[in-house]
Amino acid sequence: MDQLKAYKKGFEYSYSLGAFPTYELIKSRPEKVIAVYTHSSYTDMESITKLCNENDIPMRRDDKLFHKISDKENCFVIGVFEKYESILAKDKSHIVLVNPSNMGNLGTIMRTALGLGIEDIALITPCADIYNPKTVRASMGALFKLRFHHFDNFSDYRHEYHKQDVFTFMLNGENTLEIQNCPKSELFSLVFGNEATGLDDSFLKEGTSICIPQSPEVDSLNITIAVGIGTFLFTHQK
Amino acid sequence: MDQLKAYKKGFEYSYSLGAFPTYELIKSRPEKVIAVYTHSSYTDMESITKLCNENDIPMRRDDKLFHKISDKENCFVIGVFEKYESILAKDKSHIVLVNPSNMGNLGTIMRTALGLGIEDIALITPCADIYNPKTVRASMGALFKLRFHHFDNFSDYRHEYHKQDVFTFMLNGENTLEIQNCPKSELFSLVFGNEATGLDDSFLKEGTSICIPQSPEVDSLNITIAVGIGTFLFTHQK
Repeated sequence: MDQLKAYKKGFEYSYSLGAFPTYELIKSRPEKVIAVYTHSSYTDMESITKLCNENDIPMRRDDKLFHKISDKENCFVIGVFEKYESILAKDKSHIVLVNPSNMGNLGTIMRTALGLGIEDIALITPCADIYNPKTVRASMGALFKLRFHHFDNFSDYRHEYHKQDVFTFMLNGENTLEIQNCPKSELFSLVFGNEATGLDDSFLKEGTSICIPQSPEVDSLNITIAVGIGTFLFTHQK
Repeated sequence: MDQLKAYKKGFEYSYSLGAFPTYELIKSRPEKVIAVYTHSSYTDMESITKLCNENDIPMRRDDKLFHKISDKENCFVIGVFEKYESILAKDKSHIVLVNPSNMGNLGTIMRTALGLGIEDIALITPCADIYNPKTVRASMGALFKLRFHHFDNFSDYRHEYHKQDVFTFMLNGENTLEIQNCPKSELFSLVFGNEATGLDDSFLKEGTSICIPQSPEVDSLNITIAVGIGTFLFTHQK
């Protein structure tokens, strides 16, 4: 393997920075782990060594690498992993993100989805870099436990996954979401737009459009919050 | 006024970076605005000039200042404002944040609270700097439209605001929050803990403890998401 460098989007591999996401990486996607680096200050070598040995993952030590790759002081473990895509489950509910542009938001949404029981994420390009270490960190390793797949446009996604009922979250959505009236669906796709622009009006015709009621005092809710509220209501219908 | 410098916590003033939060600042707290700086590249001088004139706010031009104060390229307006605290409303529902440590989260929570109709935020110290330009930016200016107040501990808060029903959000909360069983309360305080440590067990005895159901696959939901889900459910009871 070449000398490792600060992450760039064009790389075929990326990094999990910190012990927690690296453990999640090894446990969830051991076959994708190229190597694990530990810093000489790391104190829990026994556990990580055991886990790496069990999964035939090479361990390396290179303290200088940590300064090059991580911008946080308290990072003592780095996982190097090969980039990959997954196939989404045909018979599970999905979250669809149309042109998400912020890596922190993308990671937080993955953590939220997994926490609320949605394990399939469709990404419509252009899309923030899901492999960037910042996204991985914001996801708290949820990235490795989910299935995700990129699509060039919503039609391509829909062509492959047409059994799901589609619900689009839009400020001008036709149905105001309330606890009492959240649509009941066993199999759904919740669709959320870009942070700045939302979903364009063409999405009013895709399935059922939904507006989360919010005060005129704010421009909009943050997308991560909209995903949290929408997903909680859809996954907790009885 | 002295030469302006990059923000530090000890300052008696802070900055709103960008046109949107600066408009929110001027409209909501005109008496706190010390000056507004515009960059020579800013294109909508007419509107901002009118608003500043109406509020007797001095306008200044200093392109070099933008590099010193803002780390974003696309910042063309800076508001300089005097730090302040407010008195929380006695007869309104509150969000109480115990030791929030991340400025981005704090800002996002304020934006979420305002969006969902909660206008009073109690902050239990130690607490991330609410005036830091990063917090202001994450709040999208919601900071200026809310009332917020710092307290040394929860008892001090509770001593002043005792009419509210208290609900504490804890991973080991005794009541699992579901759509069907969200406690009904006309006047409440929703209490959320620190990002890393949550609320300590002493909060199990403060009012009603609540757990948002979540998958064992995640460590926890992000605090901003917990606030979003919890606040939506409490504010949308019928």
